[in-house]
Amino acid sequence: MTRAYDAIAIGASLATLDGDGGYGAIEDGALGWRDGLLAYVGARTGLRGDPATLAGEVVALDGGWITPGLVDCHTHAVFAGDRAGEFELRLQGASYEEVARAGGGILSTVRAVRAASEDELLAQSLPRARALLRDGATTLEIKSGYGLDLRNERKMLRVARRIGDELGITVRTTYLGAHALPPEYTGSGQAGSEQAGDANGYIAAAVEWLVALQAEGLVDAVDAFCEGIGFTPAQTRRMFEAASALKLPVKLHADQLSDLGGAGLVAEYRGLSADHIEHASEAGVRAMAAAGTVAVLLPGAFHVLRETRLPPLESLRAHGVPMAVATDCNPGTSPLLSLRQAMQLACTHFRLTPAEALRGATVHGARALGLADRGMLRVGMRADFVHWRVRQPAELCYWLGGDLATAVFAGGQRIA
Amino acid sequence: MTRAYDAIAIGASLATLDGDGGYGAIEDGALGWRDGLLAYVGARTGLRGDPATLAGEVVALDGGWITPGLVDCHTHAVFAGDRAGEFELRLQGASYEEVARAGGGILSTVRAVRAASEDELLAQSLPRARALLRDGATTLEIKSGYGLDLRNERKMLRVARRIGDELGITVRTTYLGAHALPPEYTGSGQAGSEQAGDANGYIAAAVEWLVALQAEGLVDAVDAFCEGIGFTPAQTRRMFEAASALKLPVKLHADQLSDLGGAGLVAEYRGLSADHIEHASEAGVRAMAAAGTVAVLLPGAFHVLRETRLPPLESLRAHGVPMAVATDCNPGTSPLLSLRQAMQLACTHFRLTPAEALRGATVHGARALGLADRGMLRVGMRADFVHWRVRQPAELCYWLGGDLATAVFAGGQRIA
Ligand SMILES: [Zn+2]
Ligand SMILES: [Zn+2]
Repeated sequence: MTRAYDAIAIGASLATLDGDGGYGAIEDGALGWRDGLLAYVGARTGLRGDPATLAGEVVALDGGWITPGLVDCHTHAVFAGDRAGEFELRLQGASYEEVARAGGGILSTVRAVRAASEDELLAQSLPRARALLRDGATTLEIKSGYGLDLRNERKMLRVARRIGDELGITVRTTYLGAHALPPEYTGSGQAGSEQAGDANGYIAAAVEWLVALQAEGLVDAVDAFCEGIGFTPAQTRRMFEAASALKLPVKLHADQLSDLGGAGLVAEYRGLSADHIEHASEAGVRAMAAAGTVAVLLPGAFHVLRETRLPPLESLRAHGVPMAVATDCNPGTSPLLSLRQAMQLACTHFRLTPAEALRGATVHGARALGLADRGMLRVGMRADFVHWRVRQPAELCYWLGGDLATAVFAGGQRIA
Repeated sequence: MTRAYDAIAIGASLATLDGDGGYGAIEDGALGWRDGLLAYVGARTGLRGDPATLAGEVVALDGGWITPGLVDCHTHAVFAGDRAGEFELRLQGASYEEVARAGGGILSTVRAVRAASEDELLAQSLPRARALLRDGATTLEIKSGYGLDLRNERKMLRVARRIGDELGITVRTTYLGAHALPPEYTGSGQAGSEQAGDANGYIAAAVEWLVALQAEGLVDAVDAFCEGIGFTPAQTRRMFEAASALKLPVKLHADQLSDLGGAGLVAEYRGLSADHIEHASEAGVRAMAAAGTVAVLLPGAFHVLRETRLPPLESLRAHGVPMAVATDCNPGTSPLLSLRQAMQLACTHFRLTPAEALRGATVHGARALGLADRGMLRVGMRADFVHWRVRQPAELCYWLGGDLATAVFAGGQRIA
């Protein structure tokens, strides 16, 4: 006998996120799936028959809400070591120079990543990815960018892929060779240059590595850190040209600390997303709107760095730029192990509504990764979803801490 | 054969918090306990013999750190309903009046608590207490104050006691009848009075309930909300006089939104703690120091309400006032389900060092509850401790989210 569904979940309400705004709520809903894809999304009363007859398995829930699996579209979750010591030094009153002299900063993470074997790097990174999963993330973007040479960028990207295999989640890899200048290229520095040392030489090398890593199937997208303390727009453009030649989509750490026109630059390449963008101009936002580039809001770094300059939220809303929310999970500026906590911070610091924050961590997070098969509960989409012990979806953005996710499914399989 | 210890934990480092500052760290430590009390705290090499011979059970850990069980000395974790809807309305732009008209505010929680049976209230509150426990809290203070009549204040305090029994943690109950004026006493209000309605009449009734509830063994301490929107210092004093007559210690929600001299008032009664105290005066801090009153910092409410006025941290440090950190877990202003997240917020918003924050959630939290038998790892103290998957104690204040606690013990028993 052929059953209509492999399984049906009943007893909870659905926040489908389908439609233009709000939660797309269906109270007393039912969710049916088959072969890893959603096959029924609607009211329980709309099921044509008894769930136990229609499906091989019935997941009977006692209230709560089901949302799409969360999509964390910006993380640096693969790294070795941590920077809690640096965090502690700063709180003890150390200056940034003192922290640097004590071996802190991004290069300390680069050293730790280079020193770790691939298996060690996996062992250190897996608990973080598992924490993100346990709080509802079924899709993670993970960037390279702490290796800064071919061997170590490859190691990071391989670890990212292995995390996906290990946990049963989707991992999308992003090559972020243009993250920082490694020691091999810093040299003596040059007064007046935005990036001391041979940044142009480094970008030329990083472009070659991209070609190699893409050929190995390790790269889904390309990112850069375009900033006074990062790479110039011209250097970013060189990386984007290389990506375009390989038909890889681009995204950008843009306009976080100053307005270098990053939002406009990534839009010019029809980039998937411009991320951070606290300092993006109105022209940058318009360019994003025209190009369909998503704004990725990263309130974790804003929180930890105690920033005060908000992203141009009203302008983003006015121009209809989709706003995603992500953890930016990284050891230096955003030690977040939960996308739900990023949603909380987006509501508290950026005054997003809970519905905007949830849409940012589902529909728009998926769009920021170029994934059209997820991010909402709709027939034909992937059966990636989470059941939460909450009375209303706004609670997902309201609580700090807590174990709210009772079950996480990806591709129709329960994975947490 | 008599063994020296019921069990010994080895393989982790210890943050004993014993001593005047810092973590009291012991690398490669051993912890032995017997009859629920710590019997060995020191270096593993200091054990006189093989752990397996010395103890009935050896808990072999693979790195990480052991800290004392966390003490959350200020919570309103027993309540019904939630106020996520109100949180959402405010983020959608509703004014406080609109929220009130929509049935929000503290009285909505009072209605929900009154409507719930004792078992329902327990069922709703237990997952919160369990979340706090799973993130390391082995001692919780829980306040009444959403019943606001004898029957419902009793119900709350009984539920608090049942939570302790159910989870195997210590729950200390605090009577907070003087939390808000219930509908029965609000009447038409009186221009110029700080609290509209018959607040004096309500305090008189609340004092009588205290006597009854204390006789039932339900009250460990007495608290009040002394604030322009709460009760006056004179009304607070009446409640404190009643507590003193019953030999119950007092504490106070003091100087959170304005300086009414609450810190000095509670110090006058040699109170356990003055809580919030963003607006406390230098004189108030001096009085606390002289009385041995602990400052309880509540960064969750500060975060959610986006306050900017910091507690008088330098003055507290200068006068040697112990600073505790607590969640203030409550549905209106501090929906925190993790004391570790309160520590993170204390570091981020108040610039506490991680060592201060951890001391605030252990040693000083215990002191704020008048408990001399816990809060550090020392022979003779309760065997309440937590093993964390971290490389250094500062990580407890660094990560937002994540499952860092791998095991929680209270009285020598593993409870999570
Ligand atoms: Zn980033
Ligand atoms: Zn409180």
